[in-house]
Amino acid sequence: MEKKIWVTYKNGVYDITDYVPKHPGGSKILLGAGGSIEPFWKMYAAHENPAMYALLEKFRIGNIVETSKPVDMKDPFRNDPVRHPALRPNSVKPFNAEPPGPLLVDNFITPNELFFVRNHLPVPKIDIKNYKLKLGTEGGRKEMSYSLKELKSKFPKHEVAVTIQCAGNRRIEMSEKKNVRGLSWQSTAISTAVWSGVRLSDLLKHAGIDIDKGDYSHIQFEGCDKDPEGSAYGASIPIALAQGRKNDIIIAYEMNGEEIPEDHGYPLRVIIPGVVGARQVKWLGRILVSKNESDSHWQQKDYKGFNPSVDWDTVDFSKSAAVQDLPVVSTICEPEPGTVLDEDSDEVVVKGYAFSGGGRGIIRVDVSADGGKTWRTAELLDGSDQNPYRAWAWTLWEAVVPLPENHRGKVELISKAVDSSYNVQPDSVEGIWNLRGLLNNAWHRVPVSVAK
Amino acid sequence: MEKKIWVTYKNGVYDITDYVPKHPGGSKILLGAGGSIEPFWKMYAAHENPAMYALLEKFRIGNIVETSKPVDMKDPFRNDPVRHPALRPNSVKPFNAEPPGPLLVDNFITPNELFFVRNHLPVPKIDIKNYKLKLGTEGGRKEMSYSLKELKSKFPKHEVAVTIQCAGNRRIEMSEKKNVRGLSWQSTAISTAVWSGVRLSDLLKHAGIDIDKGDYSHIQFEGCDKDPEGSAYGASIPIALAQGRKNDIIIAYEMNGEEIPEDHGYPLRVIIPGVVGARQVKWLGRILVSKNESDSHWQQKDYKGFNPSVDWDTVDFSKSAAVQDLPVVSTICEPEPGTVLDEDSDEVVVKGYAFSGGGRGIIRVDVSADGGKTWRTAELLDGSDQNPYRAWAWTLWEAVVPLPENHRGKVELISKAVDSSYNVQPDSVEGIWNLRGLLNNAWHRVPVSVAK
Repeated sequence: MEKKIWVTYKNGVYDITDYVPKHPGGSKILLGAGGSIEPFWKMYAAHENPAMYALLEKFRIGNIVETSKPVDMKDPFRNDPVRHPALRPNSVKPFNAEPPGPLLVDNFITPNELFFVRNHLPVPKIDIKNYKLKLGTEGGRKEMSYSLKELKSKFPKHEVAVTIQCAGNRRIEMSEKKNVRGLSWQSTAISTAVWSGVRLSDLLKHAGIDIDKGDYSHIQFEGCDKDPEGSAYGASIPIALAQGRKNDIIIAYEMNGEEIPEDHGYPLRVIIPGVVGARQVKWLGRILVSKNESDSHWQQKDYKGFNPSVDWDTVDFSKSAAVQDLPVVSTICEPEPGTVLDEDSDEVVVKGYAFSGGGRGIIRVDVSADGGKTWRTAELLDGSDQNPYRAWAWTLWEAVVPLPENHRGKVELISKAVDSSYNVQPDSVEGIWNLRGLLNNAWHRVPVSVAK
Repeated sequence: MEKKIWVTYKNGVYDITDYVPKHPGGSKILLGAGGSIEPFWKMYAAHENPAMYALLEKFRIGNIVETSKPVDMKDPFRNDPVRHPALRPNSVKPFNAEPPGPLLVDNFITPNELFFVRNHLPVPKIDIKNYKLKLGTEGGRKEMSYSLKELKSKFPKHEVAVTIQCAGNRRIEMSEKKNVRGLSWQSTAISTAVWSGVRLSDLLKHAGIDIDKGDYSHIQFEGCDKDPEGSAYGASIPIALAQGRKNDIIIAYEMNGEEIPEDHGYPLRVIIPGVVGARQVKWLGRILVSKNESDSHWQQKDYKGFNPSVDWDTVDFSKSAAVQDLPVVSTICEPEPGTVLDEDSDEVVVKGYAFSGGGRGIIRVDVSADGGKTWRTAELLDGSDQNPYRAWAWTLWEAVVPLPENHRGKVELISKAVDSSYNVQPDSVEGIWNLRGLLNNAWHRVPVSVAK
């Protein structure tokens, strides 16, 4: 039976099977297959013109009649927003999803609708009229509180381009070695945006809190998202970390020039460049300067590393340091695993991202098409001009790698990066495997084949 | 023929063969074999007492008559100092040597006489009466100059415990895979001292130089040591790096509370915590704040990394970033390679150091005695209480690791460390091999055996 490719646009249904091979953007057209192409045309705005609408009309085969679904008032996820169809979900409630690799590396700044989503709990409904961000010290005098309007009007606006990565990115490669607990992220639980808002340092100064005096050791952040028992999501960072990047930690109210979308923390997300996503608390409700780390589950019993021999019977979370700054990583986004290259290919174009925490820029990416026997140094693209000691965003890269002779149809592509501290990725998953499947920054290996 | 173990003390020659098995400090006594034990007794001061002298006298078998050697005035190395006999030289002119591993991890602070020596050129003879440190900006007004006395009297004295490591440490493991150029360092081209002197920031302020204004990008350092053509040793660091550790960069005039020894930079060495030894210029003569990197051979054409496929025909030094901050490493210092463990051993005590550049503290060291199949987390000792974001010195560690059953007499010990950014060591040398043999931070593998 021949497979047909249908898409929808507004109430129209279109069979675009015959057009697919002619699409100037190549196979990316298939991302919209089986659903509405409106979100894609919005993203690739060149489509939005009369000639395109006319072309599309030729393929109309029918119309949709919408039926309305009742809202289940008992569903804690009932306030979750509509998501872009290109996102590939790992879980729906709570919603966790990542974009396709080839779309991700199309842009240095990820479009908001493609930014990976990592929600621990239902998206909270914020009553913006009564919303206030609270700020205080542990055991200190009365908390300060700030409305969104006050934050926007009273403080200078700063922006910073920051890459956020989930600690579980590339977990699936760990779980292939030995079972781990956590969402099965592929390799794109990472995205980059320009975040704008108030500097944390300005806010602390306004509240009369001096973190350099040595009275406190941690800054805690609490979200407005709550678990069924009513406990809020929480995390913290050491003050020693905050001191080193004082002017770059932002209480953001904009993401890529727009209000922060509901999935990404509306109205406020704390942006702490260089650290793992889990500490960059969304739907920010409270900041507490404290002697102690956050006592939340996510700070104490979740995002921590262990050696490969530690199992759920022997693990002691109190003995391990909470993940903060991220290690160096690089990932091949194109071609995707399983891609079949043309039979007359003698080289392959490989594209990806590389990123390191703590502001360390990427100084080199090496790519191999023969299992690591020989390496090509990739060309570093957007992001390579960042200050190598304050590089808060990733670096995109591309390499043209000759295919090995005698590849017998199978080729393993590998990438590995070096950061400005000359830290490198480990060769394999085995030595960094951990029961939570965190921080997989092993060489990225992508199997492809060559048509015969 | 039976081997005899002789040592000297002052003009006495002693046969200590029978005493060796009784030595309370174990086999360390053999470090003095064939030479004077005075430098060792000075280091382990418990020896310096009448009972020890009396014990030694029992073994006297003769006396030394000294003959004087004429000084070769054409030898550029004629001013080089006398070194401690425990140091293991890799080259004599210029002098480069490292201490034995078991002695190194005896102390968090390395005794000056055991501190590894990395000299690129002859040790310069400093005329301290006329010595002045020069400080200026490129194209700027007249240079400032400071005598040692002025530096000591005019500025506050600060101290910082800093580990210095040669970029070529553990090069020998790389050269075992494929030939590299450079000294054959084993795994102890690294040491730690408390350095005291003037903060670079105080000196710059005194000279009216503001590195935060954006007029300059690099700080160059020039030594008083010169090559045969009269060019001085030189290096530089980016200002962005200096800004992040402003108060911790020291123009040191003391090393462990003493004048800096001749081999280590008398009268001044710049201490830049977290970076490679090559930038921490000894016998410091000039500081130049500049728009450019140092144009010295050692900055431009030496301490840089490349991918494993780059050879001397294809290398382009202009394309690679100069090594600054060091990557995470751990090394087993005890037992040494080739050690034979007792036949009834069922576990082995493993000791070593771990260090990471950029102020990143060590959060975990894993040790394996079965080739990486199972891992024990080591106990972190001295150094583990450093601020994990300003940890300028190493962390010593120790692990008691069970020997695998069926080891058949051969055991490979492995160590690997994790720093506060969760950066890890790569599994093997192959992926980081480079033609200069730099920055080998692969898992450290030490073969030992169990007596049968």
